[in-house]
Amino acid sequence: MNTQSQLKPYVIGLDLGGTNSVFGIVDSRGDIKATTAIKTQGYATAEAYTEAAVAALQVIIDEVGGIEKIKAMGIGAPNANYYSGTIEHATNIAWGKGIVPLARLFSEALGIPVAMTNDANAAAIGEMIYGVARGMKNFIMITLGTGVGSGIVINGKIVYGSDGFAGGLGHVTMVREDGRLCGCGRTGCLEAYCSATGVARTAREMLSKTNEPSLLRELDAEAITSYDVSVAAGKGDEMAKRIFKFTGNMLGEACADFATFCSPEAFVFFGGLTKAGDLIMDPIKEGYEAHIMELFRGKAKFLISGLEGSSAAVLGASAVGWDI
Amino acid sequence: MNTQSQLKPYVIGLDLGGTNSVFGIVDSRGDIKATTAIKTQGYATAEAYTEAAVAALQVIIDEVGGIEKIKAMGIGAPNANYYSGTIEHATNIAWGKGIVPLARLFSEALGIPVAMTNDANAAAIGEMIYGVARGMKNFIMITLGTGVGSGIVINGKIVYGSDGFAGGLGHVTMVREDGRLCGCGRTGCLEAYCSATGVARTAREMLSKTNEPSLLRELDAEAITSYDVSVAAGKGDEMAKRIFKFTGNMLGEACADFATFCSPEAFVFFGGLTKAGDLIMDPIKEGYEAHIMELFRGKAKFLISGLEGSSAAVLGASAVGWDI
Repeated sequence: MNTQSQLKPYVIGLDLGGTNSVFGIVDSRGDIKATTAIKTQGYATAEAYTEAAVAALQVIIDEVGGIEKIKAMGIGAPNANYYSGTIEHATNIAWGKGIVPLARLFSEALGIPVAMTNDANAAAIGEMIYGVARGMKNFIMITLGTGVGSGIVINGKIVYGSDGFAGGLGHVTMVREDGRLCGCGRTGCLEAYCSATGVARTAREMLSKTNEPSLLRELDAEAITSYDVSVAAGKGDEMAKRIFKFTGNMLGEACADFATFCSPEAFVFFGGLTKAGDLIMDPIKEGYEAHIMELFRGKAKFLISGLEGSSAAVLGASAVGWDI
Repeated sequence: MNTQSQLKPYVIGLDLGGTNSVFGIVDSRGDIKATTAIKTQGYATAEAYTEAAVAALQVIIDEVGGIEKIKAMGIGAPNANYYSGTIEHATNIAWGKGIVPLARLFSEALGIPVAMTNDANAAAIGEMIYGVARGMKNFIMITLGTGVGSGIVINGKIVYGSDGFAGGLGHVTMVREDGRLCGCGRTGCLEAYCSATGVARTAREMLSKTNEPSLLRELDAEAITSYDVSVAAGKGDEMAKRIFKFTGNMLGEACADFATFCSPEAFVFFGGLTKAGDLIMDPIKEGYEAHIMELFRGKAKFLISGLEGSSAAVLGASAVGWDI
């Protein structure tokens, strides 16, 4: 460790989600020394959000010895542009409309350099440095949450593309005719089927199309969540298992296409849906096997994130800070 | 230019196609000093092919002052593995079955280092160094020949993936139900529709499904080529124009998916089908515009290769030689 990192041994990582913003102060070994969190929503402007965040941060900054000990900050956020440090058109965040220079706001408030990347990219960096993708140079991280996100690592580096927005694999088209409407305004996207909300939509579709008995019928159809489906599947409910099979098969089929692109060593899955374990992972592998080109068969691993809760995202975000 | 390149100012480039093998001796500015060619087929073994190639090469090697003047050789070939210097399972080449260590065979015969890459990757490198993609760090080269190939450039480097076979975008699935059988053994691949042979198949399908008058009916349906379709379209034939519209629209739709992956600055098209000019390029742009995410709209250029004939492939292959 050089003198610089001895003097400034920490970075701040921020996992900025649609609901919660989780902060961690992290050392160079990936140990999270202190954490805090605020709600992401409820602020009229990005400035008001930053002010609340810095107030919460100040407490844990003091815990580790003050801002002098901190080298930089890294942020993982939806619709974040790595090149410009801005959040762009983050429709799920009230203060995130338009183009928000969040890296600059934090940098000015804290007096340290701040870098920002997409939340799925941050998770990928976290896995690469601290998680199941340690030592891998080529892998794809797929986050299965409210949406489907992805972080693509090629030759050990996140793919940002010409504009900073590469790696949005939730929006490849999987159903070309009569596809479901996606949040992006187009139809048939992977995300419209394989996100947590996509799983709930599949459940409602299956319930309405047949009279097949299912534990899911005991619930208010409009309020069904992917968690309800996984509980029912865990109890052996046939329809719930079929919902996971449909979801996983489509994810696997999509991964087979992704393999032709960058031939990754592994696909790493992260997020709520992975809690279903084999219920989702087996159909993913099955869909992949059924569609993969012979040339790639048997080469890629299918892994679940090894980092708990939001650790991957916080650690990944912090790693972006080390790289400044 | 350093002393080394003054002493050895040339590299050999080989564009190894299914029909012809074109050799060029190239200087560091991309000037092709001498060329020769042999047929690719008609040899029982890779050793016999190499022997014939080296015999032809010797003539032009002597023209530029002997093998002492040549630093290395680069080969662009179908199913080539950059990492291992082998051609693997090249089903279109009689001597290319199994795993053929072609780079080693040439290296032993010529006494110089030899590197090999996939033919579409070689074309991409050629465009990046000498063609329309000069100065670009992120673009996708799409070759429209007997098959559909691709070379993906991210951060100024070809994407090889974990095994050397990344960038096979001809085999993303475009038609998920009742798709055409592809040469790879799967169904619905982009290549089965948008290669030169795919265009001919589309022509035969359209001819057999309707009685619509068309210049194409004057030809033997089984022998129709994409060139025939382009000639008919050039004369204003409605069905021929519709065949290009169908082909281009699907390519554009595929490119919209590719953009979510790596957000390229440009898509560069190369190969026989591009001779049709706007007849194919306009439908490509139309399909792209209809399917691209808002975030990426208007960002990527659609270009036709600026390098004539097989120059891009020979120059690209030679560039792989400079990099050794």
